[in-house]
Amino acid sequence: MGIAVIYGSSRKNGNSEQLAKRLTNGFDADPIFLADYRIEPIQDYRHSEKEPYPEDDYRSVIERVLAQDVLVFTTPIYWYGASGLTKTFIDRWSQSLREDRDRFLAKLSSKSAWVIGIGDDEPHLKGLPLVQQFQYIFEYTGTRFEGYILGKANRPGDILEDQAALAAVEQIRSQWRGASVNG
Amino acid sequence: MGIAVIYGSSRKNGNSEQLAKRLTNGFDADPIFLADYRIEPIQDYRHSEKEPYPEDDYRSVIERVLAQDVLVFTTPIYWYGASGLTKTFIDRWSQSLREDRDRFLAKLSSKSAWVIGIGDDEPHLKGLPLVQQFQYIFEYTGTRFEGYILGKANRPGDILEDQAALAAVEQIRSQWRGASVNG
Amino acid sequence: MGIAVIYGSSRKNGNSEQLAKRLTNGFDADPIFLADYRIEPIQDYRHSEKEPYPEDDYRSVIERVLAQDVLVFTTPIYWYGASGLTKTFIDRWSQSLREDRDRFLAKLSSKSAWVIGIGDDEPHLKGLPLVQQFQYIFEYTGTRFEGYILGKANRPGDILEDQAALAAVEQIRSQWRGASVNG
Amino acid sequence: MGIAVIYGSSRKNGNSEQLAKRLTNGFDADPIFLADYRIEPIQDYRHSEKEPYPEDDYRSVIERVLAQDVLVFTTPIYWYGASGLTKTFIDRWSQSLREDRDRFLAKLSSKSAWVIGIGDDEPHLKGLPLVQQFQYIFEYTGTRFEGYILGKANRPGDILEDQAALAAVEQIRSQWRGASVNG
Repeated sequence: MGIAVIYGSSRKNGNSEQLAKRLTNGFDADPIFLADYRIEPIQDYRHSEKEPYPEDDYRSVIERVLAQDVLVFTTPIYWYGASGLTKTFIDRWSQSLREDRDRFLAKLSSKSAWVIGIGDDEPHLKGLPLVQQFQYIFEYTGTRFEGYILGKANRPGDILEDQAALAAVEQIRSQWRGASVNG
Repeated sequence: MGIAVIYGSSRKNGNSEQLAKRLTNGFDADPIFLADYRIEPIQDYRHSEKEPYPEDDYRSVIERVLAQDVLVFTTPIYWYGASGLTKTFIDRWSQSLREDRDRFLAKLSSKSAWVIGIGDDEPHLKGLPLVQQFQYIFEYTGTRFEGYILGKANRPGDILEDQAALAAVEQIRSQWRGASVNG
Repeated sequence: MGIAVIYGSSRKNGNSEQLAKRLTNGFDADPIFLADYRIEPIQDYRHSEKEPYPEDDYRSVIERVLAQDVLVFTTPIYWYGASGLTKTFIDRWSQSLREDRDRFLAKLSSKSAWVIGIGDDEPHLKGLPLVQQFQYIFEYTGTRFEGYILGKANRPGDILEDQAALAAVEQIRSQWRGASVNG
Repeated sequence: MGIAVIYGSSRKNGNSEQLAKRLTNGFDADPIFLADYRIEPIQDYRHSEKEPYPEDDYRSVIERVLAQDVLVFTTPIYWYGASGLTKTFIDRWSQSLREDRDRFLAKLSSKSAWVIGIGDDEPHLKGLPLVQQFQYIFEYTGTRFEGYILGKANRPGDILEDQAALAAVEQIRSQWRGASVNG
């Protein structure tokens, strides 16, 4: 079981990253820090002559995502949603749909996904629109939305005090260990 | 009454733009096409020495927004949320909060806001997480969230066939005309 | 085209009723006032010997609903959801699923539905969980969820001042007139 | 710390009850089975001469609720919402608002609340409108909404296999034990 961890924070070693590392520690995981790559906003070519898409890092990043079995979207909750880095990356999926729809959906529909969102302002409630947005995204791609962790943190390291988030991490790790043995 | 129309589409003359133009036609509106400007993702400096923010177009764009009385966020629904351009712009509000929190919130809390989201896949239902996200955003900034239009369109011009969206546009225009006379 | 209007208010001539009457005036509509009938809470017999269901008015009411083509759920927003009368009625659908699942779903899946929810506390935002709940209900039954009106009112008659709600009513009536001619 | 557990199921020993008992075992809890009482639908007297409210069990039940420090709403997820029994009980809070608004809100605003919802059809996603409805309810009453557990179960006892729900239970119990010692 290989895991693509898609980090949407602009800074390193933030709370969302710390929780995702605790979640994936010891598993076969490819950490993808979106902030390390140049990924332009989607160009909407649906109704025009198809022009070339940006020659940036999108294609190499999405291939790393598609190569794994499990997706863990890991984002700070900025303004009650996924970070702009995360959203801009997902918007580019429309490019993949145009370039090779069948392969793209076939790959995504065989994966399972988790979402980690860490925020400071009542994340277990005000993070729910973020969860519902991912719900529709995964429904469209046919990806199995296994679950989510909405954790509370502000200062670096706070997340390691969020006992509910830590319990959720342990529960997922147990589930993954079972999958590794049985799967 | 001045209106800032914040366009989040990557292309010109799309459905969301067409509806917003119909909404604001004849009113004093400043059209702001985010795609025309360079706005970098937010740098999260909350817990570090404050480093310089990107010298891009953010500050001039946000000042144009703050100069108006009414905000109309106009975005295609990409992947069940606001476009990456829109989200990246809003993420940068965290910079304004750091640079001049009191002025920023004082200005936003005196405004009213509308959201237009146009999509193809059951927007009146699957666009609701987008609405709820803006609900929390405006709750935080103290902006009065007047309403939203979730319109259905795919091909260019489709939106002008969405009778419910057009009726909503006319109703808001009537409200604005009353405000201009009375306000 | 026949319309079942399912009224969930405990009082007559309230705002939700006034709006629904304006919506359905001149169409072939069966007004069903849940408050006029005795409908007990569901008994959960899923995992027990099936005992008799209450001999109350549920079966006759649901048959009137199933006899029409279009459903209009009309409820005041009580505590940010459909009224207890409305919810208790829908809970009893589990009885219909047990008694004659195939017929029940076949009938509901051929219908279209609208929801009217009228409230006083920011209904266009705080009424959204109610809409989302109906979204899942109709997804389960295969009913086409055409749309909803979230209107604002407190004192009797207020709803007739809600211009957005009235515009939505007119738009649906136009749609229905087209359907009657073409359908 | 006293806990009012408000059970909204129509049957005894169901999954939601089993989880709530595991949660509250060993704590000072008053189990309130709504199905054991006669609680009529709310009469909406807001705009009429106040007539007598039903002489049923509502007043005695709500007093037991108000007497405790912590509320645990425990309901099966019926049709993607709280059970009709639960909703009908909450609707009656409007009676308490009319009869003694200040005392009612003063009491509720000093409490903290948890919600347990158990369902079979993707409860961690399709139970979210239920959570959001309680979010608005508690926002109105000033009650601190501590958290929720959305568990998955169908047949009796299934819930004891839901490892995520069990982990959440243990985490809340730890939190309560800390509160009992420190509080």
